[in-house]
Amino acid sequence: MVLEKILKENDIKKIPESEWPLLAGEIRDFLIDKISVTGGHLGSNLGAVELTMALHLFCNLPDDKIVWDVGHQSYTHKLLTGRREGFDTLRKYGGMAGFPKTKESPCDSFNTGHSSTSISAGLGLVKARDLRGENHTIVSVIGDGSLTGGMAYEALNNASKLTSNFIVVLNDNNMSISENVGGVSKYLNSIRTADTYLGLKENVLNTLLKVPGGEGIANRIRKAKSTVKSMVVPGMFFEDMGITYLGPVDGHNVKAILKVLEEAKHVKGPVLVHVNTKKGKGYLPAERHPSRFHGTEPFDVATGLPSHPHNKANYTDVFSTVMVKLGERNEKVVAITAAMADGTGLKRFRNAYLDRFFDVGIAEEHAVTFAAGLAAGGMRPVVAIYSSFLQRAYDQILHDVCIQNLPVTFAIDRAGVVGSDGETHQGIFDLSYLSSIPGITIMAPKNKWELSDMLKFAVSFDGPVAIRYPRGEAYDGLEAFRAPVEYAKSEIIYSEKDIALVAVGSMVKTAEKVRDRLKLAGYNCTLVNARFVKPLDEAMFTTLTGEHKLIVTLEENVASGGFGERVRDFMDREGSDSELITISIPDEYVEHGNVDILKKEIGIDEETVYNKIMSKATRIW
Amino acid sequence: MVLEKILKENDIKKIPESEWPLLAGEIRDFLIDKISVTGGHLGSNLGAVELTMALHLFCNLPDDKIVWDVGHQSYTHKLLTGRREGFDTLRKYGGMAGFPKTKESPCDSFNTGHSSTSISAGLGLVKARDLRGENHTIVSVIGDGSLTGGMAYEALNNASKLTSNFIVVLNDNNMSISENVGGVSKYLNSIRTADTYLGLKENVLNTLLKVPGGEGIANRIRKAKSTVKSMVVPGMFFEDMGITYLGPVDGHNVKAILKVLEEAKHVKGPVLVHVNTKKGKGYLPAERHPSRFHGTEPFDVATGLPSHPHNKANYTDVFSTVMVKLGERNEKVVAITAAMADGTGLKRFRNAYLDRFFDVGIAEEHAVTFAAGLAAGGMRPVVAIYSSFLQRAYDQILHDVCIQNLPVTFAIDRAGVVGSDGETHQGIFDLSYLSSIPGITIMAPKNKWELSDMLKFAVSFDGPVAIRYPRGEAYDGLEAFRAPVEYAKSEIIYSEKDIALVAVGSMVKTAEKVRDRLKLAGYNCTLVNARFVKPLDEAMFTTLTGEHKLIVTLEENVASGGFGERVRDFMDREGSDSELITISIPDEYVEHGNVDILKKEIGIDEETVYNKIMSKATRIW
Repeated sequence: MVLEKILKENDIKKIPESEWPLLAGEIRDFLIDKISVTGGHLGSNLGAVELTMALHLFCNLPDDKIVWDVGHQSYTHKLLTGRREGFDTLRKYGGMAGFPKTKESPCDSFNTGHSSTSISAGLGLVKARDLRGENHTIVSVIGDGSLTGGMAYEALNNASKLTSNFIVVLNDNNMSISENVGGVSKYLNSIRTADTYLGLKENVLNTLLKVPGGEGIANRIRKAKSTVKSMVVPGMFFEDMGITYLGPVDGHNVKAILKVLEEAKHVKGPVLVHVNTKKGKGYLPAERHPSRFHGTEPFDVATGLPSHPHNKANYTDVFSTVMVKLGERNEKVVAITAAMADGTGLKRFRNAYLDRFFDVGIAEEHAVTFAAGLAAGGMRPVVAIYSSFLQRAYDQILHDVCIQNLPVTFAIDRAGVVGSDGETHQGIFDLSYLSSIPGITIMAPKNKWELSDMLKFAVSFDGPVAIRYPRGEAYDGLEAFRAPVEYAKSEIIYSEKDIALVAVGSMVKTAEKVRDRLKLAGYNCTLVNARFVKPLDEAMFTTLTGEHKLIVTLEENVASGGFGERVRDFMDREGSDSELITISIPDEYVEHGNVDILKKEIGIDEETVYNKIMSKATRIW
Repeated sequence: MVLEKILKENDIKKIPESEWPLLAGEIRDFLIDKISVTGGHLGSNLGAVELTMALHLFCNLPDDKIVWDVGHQSYTHKLLTGRREGFDTLRKYGGMAGFPKTKESPCDSFNTGHSSTSISAGLGLVKARDLRGENHTIVSVIGDGSLTGGMAYEALNNASKLTSNFIVVLNDNNMSISENVGGVSKYLNSIRTADTYLGLKENVLNTLLKVPGGEGIANRIRKAKSTVKSMVVPGMFFEDMGITYLGPVDGHNVKAILKVLEEAKHVKGPVLVHVNTKKGKGYLPAERHPSRFHGTEPFDVATGLPSHPHNKANYTDVFSTVMVKLGERNEKVVAITAAMADGTGLKRFRNAYLDRFFDVGIAEEHAVTFAAGLAAGGMRPVVAIYSSFLQRAYDQILHDVCIQNLPVTFAIDRAGVVGSDGETHQGIFDLSYLSSIPGITIMAPKNKWELSDMLKFAVSFDGPVAIRYPRGEAYDGLEAFRAPVEYAKSEIIYSEKDIALVAVGSMVKTAEKVRDRLKLAGYNCTLVNARFVKPLDEAMFTTLTGEHKLIVTLEENVASGGFGERVRDFMDREGSDSELITISIPDEYVEHGNVDILKKEIGIDEETVYNKIMSKATRIW
């Protein structure tokens, strides 16, 4: 096997050109084999095999720096930098991360996870290099999907001033996670179909020759001033910004990519290398279903079907179903996603109400202010964005939606510990950053029926509402408890005395189990489903404190700015005598791994919560 | 006077064309007269007089919607919609706001304040209009500076798909607040110098005729396919994205602008009208010093000089001076601003160390991740962004800087109540949104010397540090207290017992005065300068609680997620017996007005704090 000869960075340089295709094939087999067992990002990695090989042949690692946008396409990079063994523990607790991590290898120059950051980070590395008088090469690799994020444009705009070399590789698979959107995508389409790269800008002229009347134009352009010349070059969108454009080049031809990269290195300034790739390349199921194989659970290699099909609905499914119903009942309901029609479950809404569905690309900021505009125009927008990605739109939520008290519903999926994607993707900050915003209402459902009820409540409510719910299987317990959702009112599930558990969303299930054990241990125990994190159901807490010596809040969010701190603040100000335990996530990043392991690690699992309560209870009683 | 005939929206339509220049002159005189007394945004408003007149002649308000990006250029709009009287109370408490406010007039269609939101909001209004089967006109007015913000690009990218009319007016004064930056700016420059608008795209061809060899090209293009044709149109950057481009047009010629707007209205899709204006137009001091007259204090009309010159340094001045020193001592120190070289005080650093100074445009997201890249490359970046604008970069601070523990210093000016700019500009959330982020260190100086000491500390610290300080005059009291800044250590200023005041930054001055009064009332009183909001100086609180029955925290930040909540959490978990009062800003937006009035209104002024403490103290003792 050729792959076995690669034990560390730069080893690929010893592989003769004749064996590159063999190596590419082995890498693909390896990735399919490993990811089919562990799960992970498949499509983007299969698409980037040759590109990564070319970059490793081109670069001298770790001196040269490669910044991978998002970073889920960095598996081949990990494989070529001595981390083959890591694939057995990919995305597992304590194992290799699914994204670049500087602490994993000196060849990982910058951590990524969210989209559209690589050009900004790369430009920072370039400026640092130049100021320090160093001369290594810096390459940012960004997908066409990530190019729909505004940050990438801010960075390109700034890169234009550079007079030293900075290579941006546009890995264009004509698709981000699902289909791509917008004017830039349309534009890229128009140039990605141009002839394969021949030489600097020559292909433009060649293309012109095929247009009726083009020959004369081409001839005159050859002679004309460079300003006019640049006007008819493909990639002029980038050239207009002051970025040299090279491409497009076949992204599955290592030699061709390498040739362009070498040429790019000689540009004194920012240069964009446009590489056409195919997502899922080399594995038919992934080529055919790029969205499903973007991030995949373990699957059967022969059929491409999931190894462990899910039987129970997850919260995304519930959201998906309810949105279709809401769309039917209320024609003011519109839905917005930031490139996640599949992931958020809005695909069904799109299929049912295409004119009321908006995929804005990886553009969370625009998504939120666009929703504000829709709401100001009389609609009832539902913006579905994962918790950690909604961090991008904190200002827009505050400044554009909440100051104006506009009726926008935020459907926040992946709230809480998400597991294998790790620290960049954990949705553990939303209760904090949202709670600081005046005028917003924040809710979390205890089970699948409540998500449905809360969504109905939200789209009829005259103000901004956020509903956060976790990744994975929807809880289908506590079915009998379905009191109507009333503004700022919690739901008392079991009313006793002594100990009161007040749980937010996903933690109701945990609290229910903890309560069972406390009962077994002989304690009376009230269970409250908080429902509203903001505003606080103060009346409920006032009642509770009278009859309960110990109150426990439970939330899947960091402590600072979360539910527990606000409850403590209220109880103290009220002069409550009850003791309070606040269960929340400690002030640290939560790495990748199995959700149950992580919850134990950070102390929000049933066992830890039970022990914490017992330790206090045995002192009180 | 012509202006007197305009009492409400659409009244301008009764003014004959011959009187338009007269009206423009009267509006300018009115604005200069009023703003010279109240202060406010002058340059951008003087530049937009004719543009606003044309928009009001063109639109049927309030049915048609104008969305003003940022909104500080909306004074003429306010004047033409019956708010002339409001200018006497402009930006004063209870008076007319300096930005569009939907609650002020039905002609204000969307509140703005931060940059680059208008195209997103406008697109939302367009989609709502279309879905509701309405047919009014929607115009977003955006400056070239705001176009450097990524959100604007996200929105343009999405607008490209539109098949109904949406007019985006690019108000291009070749300058945002100070000079403009980047590739797009360079690009706009290249087309703003083209011939004044003649007819749809004809001017392009005319321009070509002036280029050697251009005549033949122009002729062939006239005959060629439209795809080739569009390649040589100015504004092709926008056309590439699917946006029809019209212009450039003279922004001080009402008739010319009106003509293009009428043409734009017939475009079935998004259309960008490029209008060239001059910032400060018609008032020489503002034309000459656009940056100083962007937002101005009251000034003398004859000379343009401030009516009440400041004698004392403000925190911005201190930051400005210290940065120059730090730059001299440590060549790794680099400075980044998002279009606010003047406002943040980094102008002096720029003048001294041009190669280590970066103005990235109105692009806070890029600014922060770019800083992360610089830090990853071994530099010590200081990012200076106002508190409310830094909200834009919450995700980048968390995801790009703090997860990697990169040594980036955030210099957060305008933290706390800022006054006359109102609710969109109050810097009252930063302690909350920053505190939720693991690994960040948050500081606030009590006086001008401490800002200097903290900055020195920050650039030598191996991790991210945020330093927040308020707008306006720097406190120069407590000069004698200058203990070295140590990580996570507060500073005890007066050590007594009974009552302990623990104040954050700007509130130390308030606490000092409150303490004087408490002493007069016969109470012993400790005064602690918190210095660090994160991490909490837990040892200090443990010590305090032993000797103080009452502890009072003071911060200029909302309660939720702030300093007080974290202190309460700590004290409760420690089982402290001391009572706690947390002084902070209530959970609501703070409108515009004089800072002292606002502080009283929200209960963080000396008098209110004193009364709150006395009311508790008299119950304890």
